[in-house]
Amino acid sequence: MIEKIQKNKILYLKLYEILKLEIIKKMINSKYYSIRQVVIKYDTNINTALKVFKMLENDGYIYLKKGVGYFIKEKSNFYVEKEILPIMESFHFRDNDIEKINFSNGSPSSEYFPFEIYKKLIERALKNYGASLLGYQDIQGLYSLRKTLADNLEKKGLFVKKEDIMITAGTQQSLSIILNTFRDSSPKTIAISNPTYPNALNLFKNMLKIKTFDLKKDGWDLIKFEEELRKERIHFVYIMTNFQNPTGISWSLEKKKKLLILGHKYNFYIIEDDCFSEFYYTKKVEPIKALDQLGKEKVIYIKTYSKILAPGIGIAAIIMPPTIMKKAILVKYTLDHGPSGLNQKVLEYFICDKYFDKHLKKLNKIFKAKYHKIFELLSTIQHISIVNKPKGGFFIWLQLDEGIDEEIFYKKCKKNGVSLLPGNIFYSDRRNSGKLRLSFIHPTLEKIEEAVKIIDNILKNY
Amino acid sequence: MIEKIQKNKILYLKLYEILKLEIIKKMINSKYYSIRQVVIKYDTNINTALKVFKMLENDGYIYLKKGVGYFIKEKSNFYVEKEILPIMESFHFRDNDIEKINFSNGSPSSEYFPFEIYKKLIERALKNYGASLLGYQDIQGLYSLRKTLADNLEKKGLFVKKEDIMITAGTQQSLSIILNTFRDSSPKTIAISNPTYPNALNLFKNMLKIKTFDLKKDGWDLIKFEEELRKERIHFVYIMTNFQNPTGISWSLEKKKKLLILGHKYNFYIIEDDCFSEFYYTKKVEPIKALDQLGKEKVIYIKTYSKILAPGIGIAAIIMPPTIMKKAILVKYTLDHGPSGLNQKVLEYFICDKYFDKHLKKLNKIFKAKYHKIFELLSTIQHISIVNKPKGGFFIWLQLDEGIDEEIFYKKCKKNGVSLLPGNIFYSDRRNSGKLRLSFIHPTLEKIEEAVKIIDNILKNY
Repeated sequence: MIEKIQKNKILYLKLYEILKLEIIKKMINSKYYSIRQVVIKYDTNINTALKVFKMLENDGYIYLKKGVGYFIKEKSNFYVEKEILPIMESFHFRDNDIEKINFSNGSPSSEYFPFEIYKKLIERALKNYGASLLGYQDIQGLYSLRKTLADNLEKKGLFVKKEDIMITAGTQQSLSIILNTFRDSSPKTIAISNPTYPNALNLFKNMLKIKTFDLKKDGWDLIKFEEELRKERIHFVYIMTNFQNPTGISWSLEKKKKLLILGHKYNFYIIEDDCFSEFYYTKKVEPIKALDQLGKEKVIYIKTYSKILAPGIGIAAIIMPPTIMKKAILVKYTLDHGPSGLNQKVLEYFICDKYFDKHLKKLNKIFKAKYHKIFELLSTIQHISIVNKPKGGFFIWLQLDEGIDEEIFYKKCKKNGVSLLPGNIFYSDRRNSGKLRLSFIHPTLEKIEEAVKIIDNILKNY
Repeated sequence: MIEKIQKNKILYLKLYEILKLEIIKKMINSKYYSIRQVVIKYDTNINTALKVFKMLENDGYIYLKKGVGYFIKEKSNFYVEKEILPIMESFHFRDNDIEKINFSNGSPSSEYFPFEIYKKLIERALKNYGASLLGYQDIQGLYSLRKTLADNLEKKGLFVKKEDIMITAGTQQSLSIILNTFRDSSPKTIAISNPTYPNALNLFKNMLKIKTFDLKKDGWDLIKFEEELRKERIHFVYIMTNFQNPTGISWSLEKKKKLLILGHKYNFYIIEDDCFSEFYYTKKVEPIKALDQLGKEKVIYIKTYSKILAPGIGIAAIIMPPTIMKKAILVKYTLDHGPSGLNQKVLEYFICDKYFDKHLKKLNKIFKAKYHKIFELLSTIQHISIVNKPKGGFFIWLQLDEGIDEEIFYKKCKKNGVSLLPGNIFYSDRRNSGKLRLSFIHPTLEKIEEAVKIIDNILKNY
């Protein structure tokens, strides 16, 4: 796959990415190549090398000392709390899987972005709608996009009206809007899975009281959950019902139904973060929103389009009960004016012209092959086991044998060129339980094989 | 100006905008034109009419009853609190100044967007950087854009490093990031001007205790302000130091300096929202940030680029003290991934290629002519007076004679095709003091003349 795509790339972009990656691994302030060395080493012409050096300098990777040559630049002052570091670092791997093997990133690699289509649709949108796409848009989201999404969501069994859809800048902004919509002087409690998506956790811990519930192989223990509901008012439940991040677990239909019944009985909203339900490799799954009763909605549904198109599209949709939409529009209005009209129009075209379905099909085919490959390989190695075999999504939740520390193991992998994420960042109490999250969608089949060998070696020599 | 630009527009876009405007003024569910009627009324061909009907239907303005014809559609369910309604409504005027005269919108009209340049730069960015612009970007903002902005801000007397700049999705997001960066368990107090920018007010009132200070013609009464500081801890000051929204007032240099001294003495941060300082019509002004001491910064500076380019670009920059940048990056990370790499790159090109300076010069020339025109005209009419003649920006703050109610007057103007904003929406206590905000940057010189005549007539017959 990489091979095929790289052939289509302009040569300088390839060189640019290779050099960027090399730099990341080097010492800061060390002497860099001369242009002549790059010309020789990468068998390129001087103009390409000059152009790429200019780009690297411009992007802050290298700097020129007059009369001495190029040097590696100090990285930007990107300090972060220790526990967030791994997940933030994972973003820096995105385009660098040529040498490092990326098992950490939760988004498809840029080689899978439908770039040529995006380019074409941008041109079309600019041609058809002109400057009006650069102005302020309907705060709830482009009318025509909402209409398109309403039709498209029917395929998931979600029967919604465009009036119940709000377009946002992504999952994170969607969560902010929802929480701020309900904010008043009384403190609120949210129930979340343990483990869970750390970025949601970081947002919640500033605004809400958090109660965690262990995620079993088919959802929460709802008897225990109801006991808690009897003891204490819970206002929200936040869950990824299908192929959860990080465990890959999907809730069973029974538990989805039961949770909804509890939502009515104890009057809480279920915030369903549906990142992954399109990415199924065995059979189709339904979001809990599909079970939600019309007119008595208890589910607030968030769907990001970053996973299918590209993170840079920055568009998600919230489906919410009509009763809270008014307030949510006001909240959104105080946050920002949402994704650009241009990107909204591009997403609309992408769906209407069936690129969406075609691209999703293509991604699923690629990811499914990787999914089968990784499980086949993992079954052959020792000292690590699969906690729960998911039926879709991007992630595998792994358990290290007792005595193997996840932090040490994670660092060893990183040092050997394999990036994955230690389990503790997904727990609200940062517990070290020997877990790892492996995202299998990034590397090629060959790289997956190579990485599993590296992991196997580390485990054998631990 | 309008004439010149409309000649360059494709005919169907012109017709589309005319019809959209007409619809806004019509009754819902009333019978709409037939395609034939539009062909005759607007002297266009049937294909253009068909295309525009399709667009209007697609955008939710009209719907087809089979066998009966087109009808005007019910507007989207866009309910808002009464006091926010006028400012939200003002967005709907954006492209409709062909018939309605827009004195309400705080952004330049879409005819002034540098659309052709934007298109060209988007193409260049996509060509040069490919799919990498669609991936996640540096959370602090594109390195090369931060570098470009650092250079560009020097022209304003701001000597900042790229490390101290964060790129955000706009002024509103910038404010959210700043407030959340300082959020902890202890409640905070913010001092703001009365009147002030209502969207900031809406954001603050959810998160902070608000104290208001009357805005005099050169800033606050700082003796009174210091008295308050002695009595009560104030953590933030939020101000637009130059050409404030809504009053057009600029702080004097003395008061800017004094405020900074107070900031050090009483340990508060000054959040400076610099929307307008480039738009000066007499002499150049400096932001308070230009007086901020390096290494002992007390100013957090927000600069939006929506006013110069277009709202749809959705990019602002925050300059903040290095001590809080780390935390701010984390906060931003929980909000969203910021503006798209593509738009960041376009803004970078726009500045580097000098389009920015040229475009700003062009805008200032146009706005200056309007500025002189409106003051000349306003001086000839009775029962309304200018509270403070600004030296730049977009706004004039007007005082109605006693006995004239601002709400009634505002509605009368609206009914007669002139949109401006009633003063009460800019006060934290929503007081009715007979004030109005008039934004003079939207209509053409001819329309300004027409609008002032309409206003004069309403006042004479009040």
